[in-house]
Amino acid sequence: MFFHQGSKKSSQNHNASSTPVMSASEIYEEWSKGNFKIQAADEDIHTANERRLKELIGDTAGKLHTGRSRNDQVVTDMRLWLRDGITTLFSHLHLLVSTMVERAALEVDFLFPGYTHMQRAQPIRWSHWLLSHVAALCRDAEKLEEMMPRVSVLPLGSGAIAGNPFNIDREFLRTELHFDGISLNSMDATSERDFVADFLFWASLCATHLSKMAEDLIIYSTKEFSFVTLSDAYSTGSSLMPQKKNSDSLELIRSKAGRTFGRCSGFLMTLKGLPSAYNKDLQEDKEAMFDSFDTMCAVLQVATGVISTLKVNPSAMEAALSPDMLATDLAYYLVRKGVPFREAHGLSGHAVRLSETKGVPLNQLSVEDLQTISPVFENSVSQVWNYVNSVEQYTAAGGTAKSSVMAQVEQVRQWLLKHNIKPKFNVISPLL
Amino acid sequence: MFFHQGSKKSSQNHNASSTPVMSASEIYEEWSKGNFKIQAADEDIHTANERRLKELIGDTAGKLHTGRSRNDQVVTDMRLWLRDGITTLFSHLHLLVSTMVERAALEVDFLFPGYTHMQRAQPIRWSHWLLSHVAALCRDAEKLEEMMPRVSVLPLGSGAIAGNPFNIDREFLRTELHFDGISLNSMDATSERDFVADFLFWASLCATHLSKMAEDLIIYSTKEFSFVTLSDAYSTGSSLMPQKKNSDSLELIRSKAGRTFGRCSGFLMTLKGLPSAYNKDLQEDKEAMFDSFDTMCAVLQVATGVISTLKVNPSAMEAALSPDMLATDLAYYLVRKGVPFREAHGLSGHAVRLSETKGVPLNQLSVEDLQTISPVFENSVSQVWNYVNSVEQYTAAGGTAKSSVMAQVEQVRQWLLKHNIKPKFNVISPLL
Amino acid sequence: MFFHQGSKKSSQNHNASSTPVMSASEIYEEWSKGNFKIQAADEDIHTANERRLKELIGDTAGKLHTGRSRNDQVVTDMRLWLRDGITTLFSHLHLLVSTMVERAALEVDFLFPGYTHMQRAQPIRWSHWLLSHVAALCRDAEKLEEMMPRVSVLPLGSGAIAGNPFNIDREFLRTELHFDGISLNSMDATSERDFVADFLFWASLCATHLSKMAEDLIIYSTKEFSFVTLSDAYSTGSSLMPQKKNSDSLELIRSKAGRTFGRCSGFLMTLKGLPSAYNKDLQEDKEAMFDSFDTMCAVLQVATGVISTLKVNPSAMEAALSPDMLATDLAYYLVRKGVPFREAHGLSGHAVRLSETKGVPLNQLSVEDLQTISPVFENSVSQVWNYVNSVEQYTAAGGTAKSSVMAQVEQVRQWLLKHNIKPKFNVISPLL
Amino acid sequence: MFFHQGSKKSSQNHNASSTPVMSASEIYEEWSKGNFKIQAADEDIHTANERRLKELIGDTAGKLHTGRSRNDQVVTDMRLWLRDGITTLFSHLHLLVSTMVERAALEVDFLFPGYTHMQRAQPIRWSHWLLSHVAALCRDAEKLEEMMPRVSVLPLGSGAIAGNPFNIDREFLRTELHFDGISLNSMDATSERDFVADFLFWASLCATHLSKMAEDLIIYSTKEFSFVTLSDAYSTGSSLMPQKKNSDSLELIRSKAGRTFGRCSGFLMTLKGLPSAYNKDLQEDKEAMFDSFDTMCAVLQVATGVISTLKVNPSAMEAALSPDMLATDLAYYLVRKGVPFREAHGLSGHAVRLSETKGVPLNQLSVEDLQTISPVFENSVSQVWNYVNSVEQYTAAGGTAKSSVMAQVEQVRQWLLKHNIKPKFNVISPLL
Repeated sequence: MFFHQGSKKSSQNHNASSTPVMSASEIYEEWSKGNFKIQAADEDIHTANERRLKELIGDTAGKLHTGRSRNDQVVTDMRLWLRDGITTLFSHLHLLVSTMVERAALEVDFLFPGYTHMQRAQPIRWSHWLLSHVAALCRDAEKLEEMMPRVSVLPLGSGAIAGNPFNIDREFLRTELHFDGISLNSMDATSERDFVADFLFWASLCATHLSKMAEDLIIYSTKEFSFVTLSDAYSTGSSLMPQKKNSDSLELIRSKAGRTFGRCSGFLMTLKGLPSAYNKDLQEDKEAMFDSFDTMCAVLQVATGVISTLKVNPSAMEAALSPDMLATDLAYYLVRKGVPFREAHGLSGHAVRLSETKGVPLNQLSVEDLQTISPVFENSVSQVWNYVNSVEQYTAAGGTAKSSVMAQVEQVRQWLLKHNIKPKFNVISPLL
Repeated sequence: MFFHQGSKKSSQNHNASSTPVMSASEIYEEWSKGNFKIQAADEDIHTANERRLKELIGDTAGKLHTGRSRNDQVVTDMRLWLRDGITTLFSHLHLLVSTMVERAALEVDFLFPGYTHMQRAQPIRWSHWLLSHVAALCRDAEKLEEMMPRVSVLPLGSGAIAGNPFNIDREFLRTELHFDGISLNSMDATSERDFVADFLFWASLCATHLSKMAEDLIIYSTKEFSFVTLSDAYSTGSSLMPQKKNSDSLELIRSKAGRTFGRCSGFLMTLKGLPSAYNKDLQEDKEAMFDSFDTMCAVLQVATGVISTLKVNPSAMEAALSPDMLATDLAYYLVRKGVPFREAHGLSGHAVRLSETKGVPLNQLSVEDLQTISPVFENSVSQVWNYVNSVEQYTAAGGTAKSSVMAQVEQVRQWLLKHNIKPKFNVISPLL
Repeated sequence: MFFHQGSKKSSQNHNASSTPVMSASEIYEEWSKGNFKIQAADEDIHTANERRLKELIGDTAGKLHTGRSRNDQVVTDMRLWLRDGITTLFSHLHLLVSTMVERAALEVDFLFPGYTHMQRAQPIRWSHWLLSHVAALCRDAEKLEEMMPRVSVLPLGSGAIAGNPFNIDREFLRTELHFDGISLNSMDATSERDFVADFLFWASLCATHLSKMAEDLIIYSTKEFSFVTLSDAYSTGSSLMPQKKNSDSLELIRSKAGRTFGRCSGFLMTLKGLPSAYNKDLQEDKEAMFDSFDTMCAVLQVATGVISTLKVNPSAMEAALSPDMLATDLAYYLVRKGVPFREAHGLSGHAVRLSETKGVPLNQLSVEDLQTISPVFENSVSQVWNYVNSVEQYTAAGGTAKSSVMAQVEQVRQWLLKHNIKPKFNVISPLL
Repeated sequence: MFFHQGSKKSSQNHNASSTPVMSASEIYEEWSKGNFKIQAADEDIHTANERRLKELIGDTAGKLHTGRSRNDQVVTDMRLWLRDGITTLFSHLHLLVSTMVERAALEVDFLFPGYTHMQRAQPIRWSHWLLSHVAALCRDAEKLEEMMPRVSVLPLGSGAIAGNPFNIDREFLRTELHFDGISLNSMDATSERDFVADFLFWASLCATHLSKMAEDLIIYSTKEFSFVTLSDAYSTGSSLMPQKKNSDSLELIRSKAGRTFGRCSGFLMTLKGLPSAYNKDLQEDKEAMFDSFDTMCAVLQVATGVISTLKVNPSAMEAALSPDMLATDLAYYLVRKGVPFREAHGLSGHAVRLSETKGVPLNQLSVEDLQTISPVFENSVSQVWNYVNSVEQYTAAGGTAKSSVMAQVEQVRQWLLKHNIKPKFNVISPLL
């Protein structure tokens, strides 16, 4: 570190108990313990540290800023911070995915309606629903990991715009600070905030995924659906209506997709059309980054809490399955007997209309009724009217058959094992 | 491909000249040549193809849709399309970067003011400016590449929501269609549009980078700066003012950051809070994706045109360098003589104020003048008043010294060689 | 009009059948009938018109552009266009509000659950729900009206930036073109697009209102709620599931909130940080304005179609009312007997819990049961268990009692009568 | 007020010094002086007030919440708050406009280049530039005023969703609380946040206007332009470059357009697709509203500070006027001699090219030179080469002639006099 070079030259001027390195550690301690006293004349964190160092080691402290600029220091600090932030968020995501996938493994036998356009479509496993959200969250986690090498690029040594004039060894700095690479160009390095913009968008899309899950659960927890019941810890009452139990936690999760995207939107607009190199406009980066991080920490943990304490009502789920949802299966029955799908789809549609005309559920049509539609129907058609049979058809990869769902569970478990990232660095960077 | 399985069973029903596979090729030809006749009753592309196939091979065509749904077909089509789109955009980016980096190599000796806060800060090389934008564009290119494996995930075989009930071999489909992976979960696969959202944001950030370059060039091409002159091909005149030459091309580039981010913003808002599985809201995906692709193709090509035809005015650039920009160098002079930076910065500030008081440029202060500020100043200080000397200090990686700039050029050239991706697939996907 | 002045001077050069004014009308006819032939050399609409006029009346046509600039012409055209657009949108809104309010009048006796947090809260009238959306749409309509005077400001006579040098009478122009005012400052007039930004935001918020109504109806048309059934004209089937009836129309309405806000978002970002006076970036204004207009025309008309053909199922609505929704009424019963609300709320909560403990609905608790909670309960409490009694309590303005709902209906009807704006102008502006 | 009714009944239970009204005043005092002690069990502001009132007057305090819900209380509070906020912002805007217009009056004789596309277009008055921004800010102020009646609509008396069951007199409440109207429908009233969305967009567009002014001034304060110099109070130095003076204040103003629009964007996205009536998602409204208010207060005041302390450099401005900017005037000279504009524009273009060929400024062409282009040129053409003559042509309303600029000044002064709104209400609303 440049600071070290400077310190060697001047260390003889001070007694052994206050070498610059030791003093730097002392200042670090003061910050850690909350004892550091900020003074009115301290312009910012950098000058505060330098002032304090001067108190401890004398004028040599004035060497601290050599070849540096706030422009490269601030963005180095932000990258150090976000590197930790990514690790934290990854662990929250990991826990949420793990909670969901284990719940999926346990409750694999619960069937309920799969909806498209919010209309009952086909019977699926409850775990299939859980895993559909797990799939999105795993993508989010992978993108968070991919972000890391782009965040972990060291700008220090770029000065204000032109670079560092003392032939500093930036590779050495990189190693000391555990960065993965160094920036290509000093002018770009001091003013680009792609890593912030990328992070804000990551948060927006992840929060959008959670808004989708929250929306489903809000609907599933209505009296009309009654598929799930939120635990008391994640719901609240009404100041007016004593019988109410509101899924506030889910609504807050849903709302945060707006909040995080607002941050992303605002920051992109601030960046638009800015001239090159540092402009004060960039100061908007920090609040946006911190707020999106805090928000995502909160919603991921709340989501884990909601999912892990959710009461599922399998009987209500089963009761919501209705014979009309087996119309596609009726067509598949014909397909398996050699009827081209398009024709089978048409014949199944006839059966749906016949059941409506006769005022009976689809599964109450007799074989004779069905044979008026097509002679291909036989007694074996009764096998169609079984929801377990229905879901068990979907054995292809990604489908809702038990084997297929459990294969998904296993795949995600393996993913979780492989992606159990631990922070590989623990930088003490006292005087950046 | 599932289609192949179906075709085998039924091929004996038709003469050799009309096997399903051959007929599929025939239909593909019709589309390619613009001869395919869409009919009023065709509900969409999928039913149009099936209808046409039926005309060619009879009822067997009705098997085409077996186990399929528009939900998995449409998103497969979009992924095929975007895969090509990414390759196209990458090649436009590659050409732009290549144009800029070669220009940087040629014009490495032009010096001009580096600005921060739009105030003259330090002398830098013109090529350093070019490379600062190259750095951003290379990040964009790398992120585009990273996107590919996430786009290249096959959803086909997911049906409408529950999966495929005929135990289709999705790995076989994947190989046939040259995808990198298959989707984990059918419910997620048919309705997630992360790859579209990611692409829209990618376009927004890339366009924001270009808006920054455009802003610089618009300012540099004002009469007041006069650093660059746009070629006539990329500027236009005025209906009222015959002397005007407007940088319309750059203004259009700058404006597109708004347009692309509008698409991203709109689509994220559409996604927010949507319930699981397919909803018609998702239909907004296509126009946003197509428009952002078209926009980015245009702006990248126009940017390449602007840069490759731009006239640079090195004498105006040099004339804009002023002695006050060497104030930091004056401080560095003192630092090299052992003065701590903070003190040197202060002394240099004194010199700036002294020059203002005396009404002479900073470099016209005599050594005696300077020695009234600090005895450390010697005759050698005259070396400071040289812009080439100034930039040549910045030899650390990423700096603006010639050696450092040429190292950047070389690094980007290597990158360009390594990342000269060619489309690795050329799928003829006639009847998806 | 300036054009007239020019024409007077030169009219003697041509025969009576081709005065400039007559020729202008002729050109207008050509455009109207689609006969105007655009030529390759026509740079834009303005030069095309001038070229055509020259063909008809000779060189005098060259006077057409005197003191004009595309900068003031284009924005005048846009304002003329949006003025019409506002009138059109207002009439679509008027029809939608009128459709909803008349439906509210007819179906005032249908009761159903009012939801907060998607949990059953209190019984309300179906018409109360309709009117809640009417209230939002009336605000939209009023804001659209308020926008008009700000759109109807004439920029013509501002030239490119400095104004008009021939002392043109801008008040005369204003009268001729039926504008409400003239712009204050030529520099601002040629480049401000507030009227576009305001319109784009108006569209976004109106579409957001419609997205809320669509969301409600999508949920109400699930099998689980079954409160409403969309007409076939506004729903579609499934390519895979013959029993499906999807509310595509509502989903498309919901999705357009994203689309329109994307336009607004994109345009604001384009405007951010633009230097003064005309820049080509402003060209993004037109597509955004046209697309948002088209989108809003479509969604307003589709919404009217959906509402006017919607089948309402009052028995399903009534069946969804449950005794626990009367818990607040139970508290009000006590309040009317002098118990402070806070205490009454607590006692009613006890009753809810008692009913849960005993496993009976709230209204099945005996008076004796209730008296264990509070001695204030008497036999008269049986009046509480009646949904009509419940809604009829809310007689205060804006409430859900029949009298109050009908008062709202009447208020909106009066509003509709007063705001039946007709286009007050029909400008033929041939040669702008 | 409902509270008053309740208080009358119970006042006899307490001594004269603690009637509910007096106690309410006491609680108001506690809040005002910062003495109110919030307790752990206080759920929110409403229950805290009720608890405190109970301490003062006993159980009667439990009547406070009768017929109320947090749903109608919170939105009433927000409207009261924003009503004050609008008044505050209006006064900041008023001061900024006033500062700018008086500066315009004083400095009306300064000429400088008007730019379009950032290219020198035509000479204009510096005051014309000031007034172009004033025009935008006056629109903002007018829209802020128009917002007031829509904010000043009272929702109190709407309960949670169904209305108020005790036949409360909402008109009386309205009068007491100085609102302009009462809400139409209780379901809408408790959950609509149009007034917040409108305000956030207002802030976004106003901030965008300020970003444009800031952009101009940042460019005008570059060394290359040197038209203006920021006062030290509104600029800052560099930690590395002692000679730097950065226009941080303007950059911060410019950046806030992004921030405010981010808030608008985020909130609209949160609103999108929300079901009717209150959902916790709406909680995002407050932080967005407060932050946008704070931001706008800050930027408007900083803008006023910047403008009122700005040093203008008229000699640099004049030096930037160049003869080529008079090319349009040359065309106008011909127009005044009867040449159709289109032809005159062409001839003036010839003159521009001739001056370039001869390597002399446009105004150095001799009459003989010009007569080779057109015989219409006479000695009087020398009058064209005068910047004051140039601007004095633009006498039409809104133009840059002195008379026209002073007319604008006068118009804005009148506007300021008429719109000097004072808060017309000063509600003490102790126990909402």
